[in-house]
Amino acid sequence: MWELDRHSGKPLYEQIADHLEQRISYGEFPPGSLLPSERKLADQLGVNRSTVILAYAELRAMGIIESRSGSGTRVSTSKWGATPKHTPNWSRYAEGGSFLPNLPFMRKIREALNQHPSLIDFASGELAADLAPMEEIAELMSEHRYTSYLGYDNPQGYIPLRQALVSYLNTYRGIQTAESSILITSGSQQSLYLITQCLLSPGDAVAIEDPSYCYSLPMFQSAGLRLFRLPVDQHGICPDDIRSLYKKHRIKMVFTNPNFQNPTGTVLSAERRKQLFEVTSELGLPVVEDDPFGLTAFEDAPPMPLKSMDVNGSILYIGSFSKIAASGLRIGWMVAPRSIVERLADARQQMDFGLSVIPQQVAAQFIKSAYFLPHLERLRTQLHFKRDLLIESLQKELADLVTFTPPRGGLHLWCHLRPQVHDGKLLEESLKRGVVFVPGSVYGSDSGFVRFTYARAKTENIGEGISRFAEALRELTS
Amino acid sequence: MWELDRHSGKPLYEQIADHLEQRISYGEFPPGSLLPSERKLADQLGVNRSTVILAYAELRAMGIIESRSGSGTRVSTSKWGATPKHTPNWSRYAEGGSFLPNLPFMRKIREALNQHPSLIDFASGELAADLAPMEEIAELMSEHRYTSYLGYDNPQGYIPLRQALVSYLNTYRGIQTAESSILITSGSQQSLYLITQCLLSPGDAVAIEDPSYCYSLPMFQSAGLRLFRLPVDQHGICPDDIRSLYKKHRIKMVFTNPNFQNPTGTVLSAERRKQLFEVTSELGLPVVEDDPFGLTAFEDAPPMPLKSMDVNGSILYIGSFSKIAASGLRIGWMVAPRSIVERLADARQQMDFGLSVIPQQVAAQFIKSAYFLPHLERLRTQLHFKRDLLIESLQKELADLVTFTPPRGGLHLWCHLRPQVHDGKLLEESLKRGVVFVPGSVYGSDSGFVRFTYARAKTENIGEGISRFAEALRELTS
Ligand SMILES: Cc1ncc(COP(=O)(O)O)c(C=O)c1O
Ligand SMILES: Cc1ncc(COP(=O)(O)O)c(C=O)c1O
Repeated sequence: MWELDRHSGKPLYEQIADHLEQRISYGEFPPGSLLPSERKLADQLGVNRSTVILAYAELRAMGIIESRSGSGTRVSTSKWGATPKHTPNWSRYAEGGSFLPNLPFMRKIREALNQHPSLIDFASGELAADLAPMEEIAELMSEHRYTSYLGYDNPQGYIPLRQALVSYLNTYRGIQTAESSILITSGSQQSLYLITQCLLSPGDAVAIEDPSYCYSLPMFQSAGLRLFRLPVDQHGICPDDIRSLYKKHRIKMVFTNPNFQNPTGTVLSAERRKQLFEVTSELGLPVVEDDPFGLTAFEDAPPMPLKSMDVNGSILYIGSFSKIAASGLRIGWMVAPRSIVERLADARQQMDFGLSVIPQQVAAQFIKSAYFLPHLERLRTQLHFKRDLLIESLQKELADLVTFTPPRGGLHLWCHLRPQVHDGKLLEESLKRGVVFVPGSVYGSDSGFVRFTYARAKTENIGEGISRFAEALRELTS
Repeated sequence: MWELDRHSGKPLYEQIADHLEQRISYGEFPPGSLLPSERKLADQLGVNRSTVILAYAELRAMGIIESRSGSGTRVSTSKWGATPKHTPNWSRYAEGGSFLPNLPFMRKIREALNQHPSLIDFASGELAADLAPMEEIAELMSEHRYTSYLGYDNPQGYIPLRQALVSYLNTYRGIQTAESSILITSGSQQSLYLITQCLLSPGDAVAIEDPSYCYSLPMFQSAGLRLFRLPVDQHGICPDDIRSLYKKHRIKMVFTNPNFQNPTGTVLSAERRKQLFEVTSELGLPVVEDDPFGLTAFEDAPPMPLKSMDVNGSILYIGSFSKIAASGLRIGWMVAPRSIVERLADARQQMDFGLSVIPQQVAAQFIKSAYFLPHLERLRTQLHFKRDLLIESLQKELADLVTFTPPRGGLHLWCHLRPQVHDGKLLEESLKRGVVFVPGSVYGSDSGFVRFTYARAKTENIGEGISRFAEALRELTS
């Protein structure tokens, strides 16, 4: 990010004007495009609004921008030797295409975190720096010399990583598979994207959990899918509903996150698992099992995936390193019948030509290394500790106002708020106080729920974060 | 890949039967799915067909597979305790979705290279191991300690890489831009994918070169685009045709690869560049400039991109490390107006959550390092040398049968064959002789053209490869 130089002799408004002129001349803001409002730019740069007013006046005097009341400030179309028709109407292109943008709340949260990295972050579903095995990875990388040929990779993924996963899946997830049944992806996210884009057609109906991580992903709507809800209670989804959804809507697939579900933290009970297998095998219905959290169980033995009991071959299994090691590795995998793996590998090749070999090498080294198990143990202990800290803080600050079931694994706590508050206003008030979380409506729930991620925030900030959140909540309810 | 153990006491057919049983029980071949034909499996494993016949008989006796005459060998549905309706009809899912599979020729080539890595490879559009800066990258990686936080990356890409690219683009490509106008992608491939998916809508018309790399990508059809052709002659595309295409079909975008075009090797002439700017700015038409080869110019100064003269802001610029460093890094970039960068970063985040940070760090280190320029010089010299070797061999073996214009940069030579031969048969005959190339029809040309990549094959194999290709051609024409 560009920053003002407060020690230079040059007035701030001139620095801003010069900087904007440069960015305009570089084509970042083409002729006719809208500039940020004075208030917004002042906010972004941390200056008074009057400073921005002066900078814009300067640019206007040079003929570089134009302001019309009511329609904001735009890059002028005449100064740059172009009449409007000469520059493509980029905003029309940016609005085109069938791919839907991220949800407004998600974009707002991302923008806020980008601009204010010091926010106390209960929103990002990932591990804090001190939970991720950074030292171990650095160590492994420094022991290895990366001289192997860096050509286009095998479209199914780097073979030694698939081999390492065969034994990982067997040891830790009770899944017996072969390297030819594994597809390496850029995390669970890409696995879900490939499934929704390549195995389903617009108009197809699918069942997803309610609430569910899937609701936060407009990719399901972008693929033209019709979404039907399977309510989640403390035992997970109720499989009975699947039969009626199938009868009514001919659902083509069921998406589930059975272990420490995002956002509720629930584990699907043994009874329900049995029912799920019965109904889906009766109907010949594929189940997509998203299993990123299984190994994070705090005290109990990690719950096994459905895939480990999949005698009929009806499960597409999705795994990832994001929640047990580092989301920035971008390594996930899918276990599926050969025909599906081949189809998805072929499509993925056209989309991005596969993953870089280097992070795949690192991931393979890491799971085979002696670092892996001790890391996992430490991770489970520390997540447990952070969860407890979050719960204590909630009880201290909001005992009368919130209810929740303590999760026994995973990264998130799903919290019901007693007072009736407006999702967006609560986020707004929290942001003002330097705290960010994800409103429950993002996951498809009615308002009145909040997802707090305890894995990402610094340990020493959790108490402070909840106390500020409590302030925000009281502000809206008093 | 699983391999037979020819030294073990166990008969080969038993090894095969055991291996298949295991793969079937792991779910790779679900009940009811088709197994490879006896001939194909024998080929893959390098055994006699009779060995496979014995192995299949064994499995049949165990009730694991069933063969019905005319419909091949399938995994049996009864043995596994499931009636047919119990297992999802995976093949119907594999055929579903709106995303088209790769072209049959491309799949055939990929499969052949996978199974026979010793093929002489004139098909893969990438650098041979000795042209890629493997030692330099290993050196840089061993100098650095990768301890930085590996969280979800900025959706626009790693900031230090974008900063490094600002100066790279300025120094080497005459492009002035800012880090906020750059989007890091998984190679040019993902840039093209994002543009076709997110900026264009089904039914939109676009112009592409003819022949063109784009024809090899069903992604254009998958996005529902209507493709119109701009014929390429020795000076590149003729921009006059753009106006008539616009009038007739309201084309929404023009895709061009002006420097050492894939597959023809042509550089768009100065005159034509001027015309292209005139007509597209008159029509307000965006141009997607794919520029992976510019820096490979053998002797002349590298041709500059259109983007360096883009006063009206009508160019979406796409670059990549694949053809100048290593395709396995999977690092590309796009320079575009802010609204477009934001739109595509948002969509990409939903598709794969961005790239791994590690290869982005490596790429940033590499272009800033003292290794970069000497590598580029060496690459240009060696590509030149390989091109000459290919030309000599063609002249020696096929002087009377082929014509071509020697490319002055890039990785490919586009070759016209005098004898009328069938594309597919020629590929078949060449494969039998251990040589692979890409038939011209893949790029949209009439049959009678071949793309030879001289960058990928080992120097010592180029002559031998062409001599075997000549044999294949003669086989079909004598
Ligand atoms: C249930 C679930 N699935 C998938 C993902 C995507 O994770 P990744 O692509 O990093 O593996 C997440 C991340 O929040 C998740 O919670
Ligand atoms: C013209 C052109 N564009 C794009 C690509 C894709 O390359 P990458 O995604 O590796 O940058 C290629 C590769 O062959 C190409 O030749």
